[in-house]
Amino acid sequence: MSEQEPVRDVAQLGHVEMLSPRPADTVWFFTEILGLQEVRKEGQSSYLRAYEDPYEYTLKVTESAQPGLGHASWRVASEAALQRRADVLSQSSLGRGWNDGDYGHGPGFAFATPDGHNMELFWDVQYFEAPAETRTALLNRPQRRPNRGVPVRRIDHLNLFTSHIDEDTEFYCRDLGFKLREVIVGDEDNSLKASWLAVTALSHDLAIMPDAAGASGRFHHIAYWYGAPQHLYDVADLMRDAGVVIEAGPGKHGISQAMYMYVYEPGGNRVELFGDAGYLDFDPQPRTITWKWSEVPGRGDVWVGAALPDVFWTYATPAIEAPSPVAV
Amino acid sequence: MSEQEPVRDVAQLGHVEMLSPRPADTVWFFTEILGLQEVRKEGQSSYLRAYEDPYEYTLKVTESAQPGLGHASWRVASEAALQRRADVLSQSSLGRGWNDGDYGHGPGFAFATPDGHNMELFWDVQYFEAPAETRTALLNRPQRRPNRGVPVRRIDHLNLFTSHIDEDTEFYCRDLGFKLREVIVGDEDNSLKASWLAVTALSHDLAIMPDAAGASGRFHHIAYWYGAPQHLYDVADLMRDAGVVIEAGPGKHGISQAMYMYVYEPGGNRVELFGDAGYLDFDPQPRTITWKWSEVPGRGDVWVGAALPDVFWTYATPAIEAPSPVAV
Amino acid sequence: MSEQEPVRDVAQLGHVEMLSPRPADTVWFFTEILGLQEVRKEGQSSYLRAYEDPYEYTLKVTESAQPGLGHASWRVASEAALQRRADVLSQSSLGRGWNDGDYGHGPGFAFATPDGHNMELFWDVQYFEAPAETRTALLNRPQRRPNRGVPVRRIDHLNLFTSHIDEDTEFYCRDLGFKLREVIVGDEDNSLKASWLAVTALSHDLAIMPDAAGASGRFHHIAYWYGAPQHLYDVADLMRDAGVVIEAGPGKHGISQAMYMYVYEPGGNRVELFGDAGYLDFDPQPRTITWKWSEVPGRGDVWVGAALPDVFWTYATPAIEAPSPVAV
Amino acid sequence: MSEQEPVRDVAQLGHVEMLSPRPADTVWFFTEILGLQEVRKEGQSSYLRAYEDPYEYTLKVTESAQPGLGHASWRVASEAALQRRADVLSQSSLGRGWNDGDYGHGPGFAFATPDGHNMELFWDVQYFEAPAETRTALLNRPQRRPNRGVPVRRIDHLNLFTSHIDEDTEFYCRDLGFKLREVIVGDEDNSLKASWLAVTALSHDLAIMPDAAGASGRFHHIAYWYGAPQHLYDVADLMRDAGVVIEAGPGKHGISQAMYMYVYEPGGNRVELFGDAGYLDFDPQPRTITWKWSEVPGRGDVWVGAALPDVFWTYATPAIEAPSPVAV
Repeated sequence: MSEQEPVRDVAQLGHVEMLSPRPADTVWFFTEILGLQEVRKEGQSSYLRAYEDPYEYTLKVTESAQPGLGHASWRVASEAALQRRADVLSQSSLGRGWNDGDYGHGPGFAFATPDGHNMELFWDVQYFEAPAETRTALLNRPQRRPNRGVPVRRIDHLNLFTSHIDEDTEFYCRDLGFKLREVIVGDEDNSLKASWLAVTALSHDLAIMPDAAGASGRFHHIAYWYGAPQHLYDVADLMRDAGVVIEAGPGKHGISQAMYMYVYEPGGNRVELFGDAGYLDFDPQPRTITWKWSEVPGRGDVWVGAALPDVFWTYATPAIEAPSPVAV
Repeated sequence: MSEQEPVRDVAQLGHVEMLSPRPADTVWFFTEILGLQEVRKEGQSSYLRAYEDPYEYTLKVTESAQPGLGHASWRVASEAALQRRADVLSQSSLGRGWNDGDYGHGPGFAFATPDGHNMELFWDVQYFEAPAETRTALLNRPQRRPNRGVPVRRIDHLNLFTSHIDEDTEFYCRDLGFKLREVIVGDEDNSLKASWLAVTALSHDLAIMPDAAGASGRFHHIAYWYGAPQHLYDVADLMRDAGVVIEAGPGKHGISQAMYMYVYEPGGNRVELFGDAGYLDFDPQPRTITWKWSEVPGRGDVWVGAALPDVFWTYATPAIEAPSPVAV
Repeated sequence: MSEQEPVRDVAQLGHVEMLSPRPADTVWFFTEILGLQEVRKEGQSSYLRAYEDPYEYTLKVTESAQPGLGHASWRVASEAALQRRADVLSQSSLGRGWNDGDYGHGPGFAFATPDGHNMELFWDVQYFEAPAETRTALLNRPQRRPNRGVPVRRIDHLNLFTSHIDEDTEFYCRDLGFKLREVIVGDEDNSLKASWLAVTALSHDLAIMPDAAGASGRFHHIAYWYGAPQHLYDVADLMRDAGVVIEAGPGKHGISQAMYMYVYEPGGNRVELFGDAGYLDFDPQPRTITWKWSEVPGRGDVWVGAALPDVFWTYATPAIEAPSPVAV
Repeated sequence: MSEQEPVRDVAQLGHVEMLSPRPADTVWFFTEILGLQEVRKEGQSSYLRAYEDPYEYTLKVTESAQPGLGHASWRVASEAALQRRADVLSQSSLGRGWNDGDYGHGPGFAFATPDGHNMELFWDVQYFEAPAETRTALLNRPQRRPNRGVPVRRIDHLNLFTSHIDEDTEFYCRDLGFKLREVIVGDEDNSLKASWLAVTALSHDLAIMPDAAGASGRFHHIAYWYGAPQHLYDVADLMRDAGVVIEAGPGKHGISQAMYMYVYEPGGNRVELFGDAGYLDFDPQPRTITWKWSEVPGRGDVWVGAALPDVFWTYATPAIEAPSPVAV
């Protein structure tokens, strides 16, 4: 392999562990409103999947005193890719070593990001096998469309707050092979403000945005995917009467071009719902779209729709400033 | 690189050369109905692009006595990847050697598929630069949404007839690194009938289906992408009154899960319009969905919507049997 | 009131009584797939409502040896309007006299159409009052969006087979004040073949089509309304795996311009689902759109989408020819 | 006719005369962005129509020093209805007498509303006859779907500011037969704050809202109808790059349940685009939905989407406070 060729060892976002002080309510939200299925409950954790997620689960909800990110787990491209990345990470101060895996996947190599988010890489994975009663005649779909809530189809991406935007961005690109799709930079000094990063053809699998509170390791949101904008309005109908707080949207982002809606699950974490695919980028030659900070409001953040509220830029979990918008 | 790791040297469908006996009408169809832009006209050829195609063009329309495929051109993942694939292809009887490139891209390595379709690989490419009057404030979009027709956003995939389904499928997977996403096999003998192949996260970048006439090198369709199902109905309104023949749809495929509509451009070639992304597959471990031949009608071919007409399974360009459905 | 002014005494389709040999399965279909609510069960009948129907119910399912129409019930514009229409109907051979009403509405005046369909007119009606747990903060909506199936919003229209197209059309217009929105006539003789009739701004509240079997009093379909085309595809996903037979669509009608899908409920009756409003006609001056019989296929019946299958034009309930398409 | 029966003499909104200080730009907006057609230009006025408007025009743009409402024109249900309403209006101080009509319609009876908006009633109307080149095979559509902009289908409703909410509401209901669909009232004193009124099955043909500046005769917006929510996002793409200011939306209103977007045409008038039909109300018995003032923000005004900006509640034309939001 030529030195100039990009690293392509990380394949996709595998699952996210979300911490919740109200795990039963969090599971209610994901199952009854978003149509996910709880495939397992063990100790303080529940494992959940959307109906087109191919693996056993994409969301692990774990009880905790505060909401936030437990860890994020990425699936690599091959067994060899796992070893290559583990070697690279072991040589840095961020490697945390091998673990035995978890329910639904094999051995993982754990690491921390420069900002302190816990992550891991894994290869072996358990595919979901639907029982007869939820099996579908649509052979490329892991199970039937659920008949409750307005069901999301699959996990989409992860968004984190960081106080180490430069180090994080460099780390994801250099050590993990992320492509830097879009960035926001300061108008005057070109200093990096936010990054959208991808290992797939999605506009982004991961975004990192500045933590206004200067904290570390905080969680902004996880996104699930509908594919049809109409479903954002459908699920909003359920949410309005079920007391789920909608923070923003539906609208169309400039960055990513995706149709979005942001809501709070009852445990206090933000969840994004994607109404379409936004743009897909198959160009193998990484090119980065650069937005000046002043170009973002009403253009990069929102191409069609109302301005995002201030809380979008300041609230993350665990919350630092009280009160939480969830209590509103 | 471990031997077990898949080849990932071909990155995406770059462009397709479509032959047309009525090139002016073909260009009218793509520009006035589908909103493409003619970026260049040279000799017997016109070069066209959809408004979110990042490169200079994705469609080359060339005058010819018969409709059909001129060639298909794939962009590779790197300069090194181009050399690796050229080496592999040169060792087989299918390699046709290097060319100097064409308008909009650098040197290409030409080859024929086992069924005789002309293709090439290239790396260097010219990105589209919009003139000031069509530049958009949406920085990740190459140009403004056109204000004519119901504009498609980007090229999606290619579909070919073949009389060498086994050889073709093996060739694409082994020599070019395609993943075999879905197949149709005979109920009794498991013989391969049709293949959907991908180099990206799309359900397929290329499909090959049996040529009922036993011919070689024929073209079934090229697909452009809308992303919104509504646009299929919008463009159908224009087509009905403009005399464009709609062959099938809108409907939802089982294989690919995509929202489709098939039409004939005035030169006689079939064009598919995709109303959404269907499923996206980020799993790095190739798994092939297998449909029995008997499971396809009204399920694999069409999950929601009417049965595809017989002509869908028999007509390709150049046409063998008269009369062409375009004359209907 | 001037003599030239149109009769406007019939206001809307109130409810339809559908006969079913499998009433439990029929109710399952309407509640679990289409999201209706069973508000009452009494004797051999169940009363059902869609979530935006303002009255207590719009569908009465009654057990019967054969599927078909029990009766259709129209709400009039006022108490005086009811008396006026009763007077007119009493003077013809079609009047059947007053009844005491039924669950959910007051006294009705019954009549038969020339083809023998049982109908009634009523004025007093019981509005639905949602219990606290299904009440919504959206004050103009009678109850929350249900969280099961893909819920339809309200009743839309009724479609009947007739062997008395001339007499029926004249009767509905003259005695009940329907506007004749669209008709199909023979190419040679201009003989009436089918009629679309409205008392509201909808393209039609009632359609009558020729009974190919020459029978009388048969039922073609009842339509419920979604308002969003996406929901046709959503509910189709449920139907495919639940064994519900989809007869035709989704597609866009020429006549009415509405987005349609036709399915069979388990009792054997056809049900149409409307994905949008089609056109609305507020013109107070009745103008009739005339389609020649030869203009209907692929244009009047279907503007966008596949041809309707033959069974659409021949099957009605009670079925005359075996086997029923439901058994397919 | 019984005394209790409602007046149903006004049938529909016929057309609106919009004043513009930049008439050429206003016409550009309606034709190039919204796809209307200019059917006539005469003196200082242009006459425009959407492609499914049945009459010759629904919008008259007239040059004027200030933007605002020229007049609104309602079509009545019959010749007799016109005389009846003229009689009633003549007996009040609001009648302004008969005129000879205008291009496209016959004699009108002019009147002023209590707040001073100029209006008229008319019966005779000229239907649009498409020339051969824009005629469509879809017989119930007056002309082909235009191939420019994102074309609206028909006029929907009118919204006015008033400083005489009580008198206006009573006037529209009593003298013109409007049904009072929804109102906003003060939390403490039940005083009327805003009214949504209908003569058709639409949620409203006319809305009147309080003029925060205490002025009279001002214009809030005219609405055109798409029928498909996707088109709001499509046209927004054009508007963003064409410099058209989007004030609010897309979102879903609580009152009316319609999908909306508000924009400013270049002359300074607000235009609403409706993405679906909202709810349709066929109930002949007028029932009024009552919203308390405190229930409106984020519920009655917007059921799904961001809060409406303050300018929505204060800006109308002619503008009183500078600067106009159009200059933003």
